[in-house]
Amino acid sequence: MKKFINQIENVLTESLSGFASAHRDLVTLQLDPTYLTRSQKAQNKVVIISGGGSGHEPLHAGYIGFGMLDAACPGQVFTSPTPDQMLAAAEAVHADKGVLFIVKNYAGDVMNFEMATEMLPFEHATVLTSDDCAVVNSTYTTGRRGVAGTVIVEKCVGSLAETGADLATCKALGDKVNARTSSIGVALTSCTVPAAGRATFDIAETELEMGVGIHGEPGRKREQMRKADAIVHDCVQAIVTDFQSKGLPTNQEALLLINGFGATPLMELYLIYHSAAKLLAGHGICVTRSLVGNYTTALDMAGASITLCLLDDEIKQHWDSPVHTPALRWGR
Amino acid sequence: MKKFINQIENVLTESLSGFASAHRDLVTLQLDPTYLTRSQKAQNKVVIISGGGSGHEPLHAGYIGFGMLDAACPGQVFTSPTPDQMLAAAEAVHADKGVLFIVKNYAGDVMNFEMATEMLPFEHATVLTSDDCAVVNSTYTTGRRGVAGTVIVEKCVGSLAETGADLATCKALGDKVNARTSSIGVALTSCTVPAAGRATFDIAETELEMGVGIHGEPGRKREQMRKADAIVHDCVQAIVTDFQSKGLPTNQEALLLINGFGATPLMELYLIYHSAAKLLAGHGICVTRSLVGNYTTALDMAGASITLCLLDDEIKQHWDSPVHTPALRWGR
Repeated sequence: MKKFINQIENVLTESLSGFASAHRDLVTLQLDPTYLTRSQKAQNKVVIISGGGSGHEPLHAGYIGFGMLDAACPGQVFTSPTPDQMLAAAEAVHADKGVLFIVKNYAGDVMNFEMATEMLPFEHATVLTSDDCAVVNSTYTTGRRGVAGTVIVEKCVGSLAETGADLATCKALGDKVNARTSSIGVALTSCTVPAAGRATFDIAETELEMGVGIHGEPGRKREQMRKADAIVHDCVQAIVTDFQSKGLPTNQEALLLINGFGATPLMELYLIYHSAAKLLAGHGICVTRSLVGNYTTALDMAGASITLCLLDDEIKQHWDSPVHTPALRWGR
Repeated sequence: MKKFINQIENVLTESLSGFASAHRDLVTLQLDPTYLTRSQKAQNKVVIISGGGSGHEPLHAGYIGFGMLDAACPGQVFTSPTPDQMLAAAEAVHADKGVLFIVKNYAGDVMNFEMATEMLPFEHATVLTSDDCAVVNSTYTTGRRGVAGTVIVEKCVGSLAETGADLATCKALGDKVNARTSSIGVALTSCTVPAAGRATFDIAETELEMGVGIHGEPGRKREQMRKADAIVHDCVQAIVTDFQSKGLPTNQEALLLINGFGATPLMELYLIYHSAAKLLAGHGICVTRSLVGNYTTALDMAGASITLCLLDDEIKQHWDSPVHTPALRWGR
């Protein structure tokens, strides 16, 4: 394992300290318990808090700021944060209109966020993201996994919360965006968790893992490596089938997110985008919003995921609205 | 070699097509010859054009837009663009105040941009970037290499050009920023050029390449892998020594850019930032501007570079000013 680290037990704290220092105009870090908030506390709005294991950067702390999250609670690498982190974060940012947690569907996260809500003295609700159409039930999950589509949920709900919308309305939008979002990922290599010191799984130079999870969980199938168009074809097919099984008409506008897992060059991500947009057009899906880059990573895994969100006027409005965070910034 | 590609000869065109489609509000792609411009042509300003071999994405096309470049000319992977590309780009974007080329110091780029200027019917000047303090002369270079500091030059000169400044003034700022910027990179793995199909160089699991170039060129020394703080210490020392050798006082404000080469997780880049900022403080250097991420990559190389730019009021003003490109966006 070759990584830019010092002691394994300090990786998270040192990295978060660098993050908070580099973005001190936007975010503030607290330790013991560990959470990050906006540098300028928002007033009189539903506060949006997310969190989860680290190793998926810029998810979630990179999305703290105007138009998106109020706080984020990072756990150790690929490990859920603990309820005291969520409680402390909620106490710090609460702004009199309740707390909305956005949680990726993994057993540890679900359990710890639930424990936090049980102790929380504020009105609260939770949006559970489950956009990964690859598999139902997985290594750390009952039901579908929450993956890169979570970024779209956080962006849209964050935007709505800035308008002063109430808790139920924010939760409803989050649930709607999640329902209209489908993702699938492909791994070309494993990731390496620093504390483990070795690859999470073995994969041959001739293989790919179709439907991999963002912690290296198994996907649908170990397959032969092939051309990008053939890989993307199968991913797009999986997503379209998922929408059809939900009864969602696909003949509409969509947001296409091509997400790198950490070690895949932007050049390849844009090539995937090119391939996917063409294939989607063949299904009557017109890509009118795009995001290409490393937005929900799996440490140093080579690979990428494709996420499609079926747009409507409300989702478009909240996707396009201004956002000002370390990892997403536009419109102001 | 496992990459998301179809035919090797189509990688660049497919990737650029995806890029132009994903960012069609900002950039437009032309083929034969290949160049990219802003979607909205700027008027009455010095136009800023850059280019170079592909494989360093988002450099340079990712920096096309308001406040930065007017056009970019991508060559094949790690291969200079040809003069007809620069000529066509200049013809397309020229806006009556001359053309400023920003060129990284590699023999092929220098030669081809020079050939273009010889045929160019417009007033023109060139800023040659040479921020890499690792080595003098290298595989593809006479003199120092231009690396990630080029992003800072493009940002500042691009900002100045928007104010209507004349060609000589834009060139002078570019030269000044380049002189006040120093970089050094470290590779943990090689990159793999698609057309070659194998690693550019061999490196053991226990080794790093100190001072590596962004094409995998040799650096100062093959060294033993060690803790991040020890690696960063040597990088910071090299940069500080470089400034001292130029007679530049280091006891001042600076911009710190931690650049990933393509396969290094953001978590590690922020850890490097944390380490570097502390060490710089020990040299009296106060980091007041930051950029952390993949901004000048080397395909799928694991590794990172540290770039420091010594700020003055003029550079700060042009760094902070609004920019609206696919890869850098703030302030509007």
